[in-house]
Amino acid sequence: MSKTKPSLPRGTRDFGPEIMSKRSFIIDIIKKNFIKYGFAQIETPAMENLSVLTGKYGDEGDQLLYKILNSGDFLSKTSKEDIEKGSRHLTTKISEKGLRYDLTVPLARFVVMNQNEITFPFKRFQIQPVWRADRPQKGRYREFYQCDADIIGSKGLWSEVELTLLLTDVFHDLRLEDYIIKINHRAFLFSFAELVGLKYQTISFCTEIDKIDKIGEDRVAENLKALGANISQINEVLSLFKENDKGIVLERLLNIGVNKEVISNINSYFEALAMSFDKKIKVELDLSLARGLSYYTGMILEVKSTGVQMGSIGGGGRYDDLTGVFGLKGISGVGISFGLDRIYDVMEELKLFPEEIASRPDVLIVHFSEENLKHAYRIVSGLRDKGIKAELYPETAGIRKQFDYSDKIGVPYTLIVGDNEMNSGRYMLKDMKTGNQEPLKMDEVMRRLKQN
Amino acid sequence: MSKTKPSLPRGTRDFGPEIMSKRSFIIDIIKKNFIKYGFAQIETPAMENLSVLTGKYGDEGDQLLYKILNSGDFLSKTSKEDIEKGSRHLTTKISEKGLRYDLTVPLARFVVMNQNEITFPFKRFQIQPVWRADRPQKGRYREFYQCDADIIGSKGLWSEVELTLLLTDVFHDLRLEDYIIKINHRAFLFSFAELVGLKYQTISFCTEIDKIDKIGEDRVAENLKALGANISQINEVLSLFKENDKGIVLERLLNIGVNKEVISNINSYFEALAMSFDKKIKVELDLSLARGLSYYTGMILEVKSTGVQMGSIGGGGRYDDLTGVFGLKGISGVGISFGLDRIYDVMEELKLFPEEIASRPDVLIVHFSEENLKHAYRIVSGLRDKGIKAELYPETAGIRKQFDYSDKIGVPYTLIVGDNEMNSGRYMLKDMKTGNQEPLKMDEVMRRLKQN
Repeated sequence: MSKTKPSLPRGTRDFGPEIMSKRSFIIDIIKKNFIKYGFAQIETPAMENLSVLTGKYGDEGDQLLYKILNSGDFLSKTSKEDIEKGSRHLTTKISEKGLRYDLTVPLARFVVMNQNEITFPFKRFQIQPVWRADRPQKGRYREFYQCDADIIGSKGLWSEVELTLLLTDVFHDLRLEDYIIKINHRAFLFSFAELVGLKYQTISFCTEIDKIDKIGEDRVAENLKALGANISQINEVLSLFKENDKGIVLERLLNIGVNKEVISNINSYFEALAMSFDKKIKVELDLSLARGLSYYTGMILEVKSTGVQMGSIGGGGRYDDLTGVFGLKGISGVGISFGLDRIYDVMEELKLFPEEIASRPDVLIVHFSEENLKHAYRIVSGLRDKGIKAELYPETAGIRKQFDYSDKIGVPYTLIVGDNEMNSGRYMLKDMKTGNQEPLKMDEVMRRLKQN
Repeated sequence: MSKTKPSLPRGTRDFGPEIMSKRSFIIDIIKKNFIKYGFAQIETPAMENLSVLTGKYGDEGDQLLYKILNSGDFLSKTSKEDIEKGSRHLTTKISEKGLRYDLTVPLARFVVMNQNEITFPFKRFQIQPVWRADRPQKGRYREFYQCDADIIGSKGLWSEVELTLLLTDVFHDLRLEDYIIKINHRAFLFSFAELVGLKYQTISFCTEIDKIDKIGEDRVAENLKALGANISQINEVLSLFKENDKGIVLERLLNIGVNKEVISNINSYFEALAMSFDKKIKVELDLSLARGLSYYTGMILEVKSTGVQMGSIGGGGRYDDLTGVFGLKGISGVGISFGLDRIYDVMEELKLFPEEIASRPDVLIVHFSEENLKHAYRIVSGLRDKGIKAELYPETAGIRKQFDYSDKIGVPYTLIVGDNEMNSGRYMLKDMKTGNQEPLKMDEVMRRLKQN
């Protein structure tokens, strides 16, 4: 094997110690709140059968699935025609498995396969990476984490309310306060589509609406017109998007012919959140919110940072038939997902990470001889057992080299173990900031380090 | 898309809530100790370039790598000859990436790519899944977690000592006390190989020695003889394996011609561990311990359960040139790895998981009407904010259905919210074990639940 200059696949990343501490800081807060709200963790395999994944994310999604080559002599199970028919056909013959694309389809599969053991409503959370063969760009990676919480098997409005409270608590704990939760209802969008004359093109309608932020109202209007929509009705819908008074909006929705129950549902949701929950809840109705995923059927939501220009940092919604595709009908679900990578970027830009999360030792033990080093074995072990992050320079070396190392790792204290110290039982503790040093008994060393 | 009956790829598993709590229990303890011993977490991508992975695990390992099909029209970059040459050759043309096979080669790649930012000695830990296209069998999966801690860039014996202390603390915290840490040194094995006349077949020699447990001494002796080894020397080595007195063993090793420094190194290791570390350290020298991985060059170790018949539940060793293959010479490393899945199996068999780790709510709130339900929103939210795992039956339903649900999820208390409760401000708290119920003010409810 010749020496290879190693590299990373495009769109993937290593996370070194500093980045990992920050990512863990976010994940720990999300996880703590998932548990607080009664969600139980599950994990599913990275690889799923392609029969499970294919056809669930639209045609484009199918192309973005990472497919795994069958093991062994995969060609032996193909014919000449299979090869002549081209890559797309051949893939089905030489690949049976793919990497998961999100955590929602694996959840649906899990629920269907375990339906007899699960007590519904089933509240699960899942924090795992997903993979998409997407074109890498700023903020878009080929491997990224999703942090999902879903409630399966309940239609009660409480689920929407508690997911909103959960979002609120997570962003509060992250000290990320500049955000807004935008909500909408798929039924509104379907009514709008019908109103402009696109009743049978609701998905295309939603896709266009979704672009307003990017390409502006005028071009969206043009696109809708090209799809066959009526221009005066388009303008009516667009003007509705700008109406800020929720009362007026809901009344106009009623006039348009939106189902009364849906409107009352949205009203109840806002009423519930208006009860004082001892927390500031930042929700607003945004009729232009569309969300790309096609499986949503009820309320949808998206979290936007108001402090940084960035795509959504969280989202979710209700879906009434996720498990139907696997043969289990009538199971309603609702879920939210946190975008770990984008939350990280926002927090980095706004400098929201606490300083103390960097992982450096509390003290480094330095020494002058083999005998000192061996004596220090017990000291470092004793300190660790007391909860102090102690580190021992691991081999005999010049004292300057050891202090250089202590500077590099940024340790606040060093503890010197020399012959004097071994004889007297008093060890020199040096404050690396002030340069002060003081001979202390081991229990005093511990007390001093514990205070920091 | 027709309805598909969903299934899991062979050799992979879903982890439901109960199993996940137990797995998290193990992982949390391992992680806590990694941090206690000063290791910093990193993560690397699931996908690595095949140029990084191939050739690092032997020929058999290469066959066990999961390869990812290139995206798009992969056939367009192949010729007719590529296809005629067969699957193995074609793979190199249609697949550039694979799933990581272990965490050690990715670590080596990480170190080489980040050598200018890393302060050595570099102590990192990594807890991530790996994938192998192995034949699935009991205790062997195609996706499984590795939990690795490595120290890169130090040759000091302290590293071996602190990794042994770390192993000891982890198994102590898991309350898994029936185990033994077996250690050996590659130099001993190389000397044995030379002694029996297999100086140039050391890897084959180690592979055979590794089989003693499985096929017995006699067949191993036969196999070694078939490789060309001298039978009387084979017997000398085998008899040495049975010698229990460490002093005698080390003297005989000296006579065989094992490097003096290595013997003194092993001696120092045992001496260091013999110092009282306030913990019981279970290490023994086992000259027949070989370990399959070819990159080890120094001390090697393996952890065996003595309570359950099972392969090793942990292992590790020193390697002097892991990064050499990526062009960075002279970096010595030493590491250990915990086998999460096997530790799980041992703990399950010995019933070592604490009972209280199951994730069930502390209290379920039941209700009689839509109005009661809405009133309960604030109650459940308030309880959660106080650290009580409260759950609300999420929709209006008959009271029997709600109590059925509380039985199924095994919740110890229910809190009843009816009109009486709403009017009086006293809520009925029912102990589900005794059936006793008592009307309590909300702060009393909290106090009562906090006690549990």
